[in-house]
Amino acid sequence: MTAMTRADCVERDAADPLAHFRDEFVLPEGVVYLDGNSLGALPKATPGRVAEMVEREWGQNLIASWNDAGWWDKPRVLGAKLAPLIGAAPHEVVVGDGTSVNLFKAVIAALRLNPGRSVVLGESGNFPTDLYITQGAAELMGAVERRVDPDSPELGEALATGGVAAVLLSHVDYRTGALRDMAGITRLAHDHGALVVWDLCHSVGAVPIGLDACAVDFAVGCTYKYLNAGPGAPAFSYVAERHHGTARQPLSGWHGHARPFDFTGDYVPAEGASRFLSGSQPLIADAALEASLDMWGRVDMELVREKSLALTDLFIELTAPAGLDLVTPRQAERRGSQVSLSHPGGYPMVRALIERGVIGDFRAPDVLRFGFTPLYLRYVDVFDAAAALVEVVCSGQWRNPRFAEREQVT
Amino acid sequence: MTAMTRADCVERDAADPLAHFRDEFVLPEGVVYLDGNSLGALPKATPGRVAEMVEREWGQNLIASWNDAGWWDKPRVLGAKLAPLIGAAPHEVVVGDGTSVNLFKAVIAALRLNPGRSVVLGESGNFPTDLYITQGAAELMGAVERRVDPDSPELGEALATGGVAAVLLSHVDYRTGALRDMAGITRLAHDHGALVVWDLCHSVGAVPIGLDACAVDFAVGCTYKYLNAGPGAPAFSYVAERHHGTARQPLSGWHGHARPFDFTGDYVPAEGASRFLSGSQPLIADAALEASLDMWGRVDMELVREKSLALTDLFIELTAPAGLDLVTPRQAERRGSQVSLSHPGGYPMVRALIERGVIGDFRAPDVLRFGFTPLYLRYVDVFDAAAALVEVVCSGQWRNPRFAEREQVT
Repeated sequence: MTAMTRADCVERDAADPLAHFRDEFVLPEGVVYLDGNSLGALPKATPGRVAEMVEREWGQNLIASWNDAGWWDKPRVLGAKLAPLIGAAPHEVVVGDGTSVNLFKAVIAALRLNPGRSVVLGESGNFPTDLYITQGAAELMGAVERRVDPDSPELGEALATGGVAAVLLSHVDYRTGALRDMAGITRLAHDHGALVVWDLCHSVGAVPIGLDACAVDFAVGCTYKYLNAGPGAPAFSYVAERHHGTARQPLSGWHGHARPFDFTGDYVPAEGASRFLSGSQPLIADAALEASLDMWGRVDMELVREKSLALTDLFIELTAPAGLDLVTPRQAERRGSQVSLSHPGGYPMVRALIERGVIGDFRAPDVLRFGFTPLYLRYVDVFDAAAALVEVVCSGQWRNPRFAEREQVT
Repeated sequence: MTAMTRADCVERDAADPLAHFRDEFVLPEGVVYLDGNSLGALPKATPGRVAEMVEREWGQNLIASWNDAGWWDKPRVLGAKLAPLIGAAPHEVVVGDGTSVNLFKAVIAALRLNPGRSVVLGESGNFPTDLYITQGAAELMGAVERRVDPDSPELGEALATGGVAAVLLSHVDYRTGALRDMAGITRLAHDHGALVVWDLCHSVGAVPIGLDACAVDFAVGCTYKYLNAGPGAPAFSYVAERHHGTARQPLSGWHGHARPFDFTGDYVPAEGASRFLSGSQPLIADAALEASLDMWGRVDMELVREKSLALTDLFIELTAPAGLDLVTPRQAERRGSQVSLSHPGGYPMVRALIERGVIGDFRAPDVLRFGFTPLYLRYVDVFDAAAALVEVVCSGQWRNPRFAEREQVT
């Protein structure tokens, strides 16, 4: 196969059915932004929506907006808007709190639904907060935390050993970009009597997800990466309908109460996914999320997946001359929407690229991580970014000592 | 004592050292807003600050803002700005998550610091989320929840019975507006070997608070009432310095880790109040909070308290002819910054007042609740509001059936 030229890329962009979405984003001049898997770009609709919320809903209508502007129901309304992106029914999703807090709720709810068992099975290489939160939840529940590599036979072996109450896995690995077989792993876990919690942080808005079709039990995800809802935007919880009457999470605040305005003395969980809510949510942040979700309502996830794989394939091919190790699976169907490469000089390489306007990030100890967001990235952007990487590496430019100075990189 | 006339009020306003703060708020035309104890008014500086955060920090600088705009340290920076308002040292306060989540952290941390004891003592009439969260935390910890009336000898009796690990009380009662003796109750609890968690939702920004001076252990509060940070704005946690090395909260996410960027496999709590953090926070909401706190940095809380008591005294006196029962303590030093009145017709009375532009709220079963925010309320506003209430009640206008129709009131 002959590698694509820049002219080929221009042609692909002209024919791209998603190309028009790029106009809906603010993208700084001279930048190729390959970090949308960490923080998505700003949709042009967002500042206006936020200003409207702040100046009219809050500033002019004040407390009346809890009813009139639908503030009270926002966690459910946003959940329903998000649901199609993850293959869920509208009433199975609520928006609120952060990923860490929601993981805690889901892990404890899963343990409680499986009272005869005490093992929470996690993955050794998961994002730290998943590991730490599981430790915190397990300690409270008198449960045992075990970790395996879910891309190896260890997972099946650990399940077969018995006693596993819940499995918590990331759908897409934040470091490697590996996409897990949600249907197969969920089935395997269920066959062994375990419930499954999926962390969708690196897959929502990046790959089509079918939570209901895969019979998933619980899922949690953030909205500030591929969904472009802004830094630290509220996270979401998915609770499968079959658990709506029985799942019990411990952060039993008044927003999760069956009749919150009765102000009664005892907690009675609400019907449905609402029982996963706790307290009031930052409605200014919710306004930004709503602007994003309204755009996502017009997006065809199959087209996103198709373009995502084309972009990542292209980047993998074009960066081959740099000679870095490919960490991300080469096989398209096993990949999320990112490409990770490794090299002992990964850190200065990322810094040198940033200086040239190509924004990726670095994950210790040696991973260069590049996220591909089909809504605002063009094929030419990928071409230019790959060319920059090859040049930075092959010219030895990355060895300039100033790139080795450490900054905190998130 | 002769009641003040409207002319007297105009004079008081002219001499009010806090009067100029009113110009720093957006206040809708024709409204007297007496619900700042539920949702504070919008500071004029906020929309610009939020827009700057969204359009420049996020839109233009993207991921680099985690370092360059100080996003990573925002929970600590905002905590330090808030600290003087609650009599805390800067490193004892962090901002993040919501009140319910933070109450959960504090109650469990207190139980863990007192391992030989198993009772969490709450108050029968506390805001429901305090009650529900305590139930959820106690269940996980195998603890027992007990409730007393903290304004009665029950509190001392329950403490004397023994076994109380932690006491969770509201500094100001959300319904009655009663202000508790923080120093005395904290001392009493300590004398009986219990730790104390104070909920400051209805006192922060309303009364001077001395957490360090009172030797409080933990405190939690919201920022969307008297602090005017916007609907559902992030809450805060106070952790007394003497507990910084030992307090352990269960939502052990990566933002509370000692070395979050090492991405190690095991949770190690950070030094100081940072260990009460969990995950990423909604930074758009944080921007609104920062705008508010920067204003509060110029406020003298003693002047706020003085005016607050003058306003509430005035309202109590001027509404006396309406003949409603006063729920709030008549004695100024036992009062927060609200006045609650009760009447079986409380709901339609509140609706009738709202129609006249006087915004208070209703709390079941029969409480009319009015909050007084010295930064943006004038004496004439209080005069006019009181006159409206007297007229609505004495004219029988509140009996109009249209005021009885129920809306959800928050």
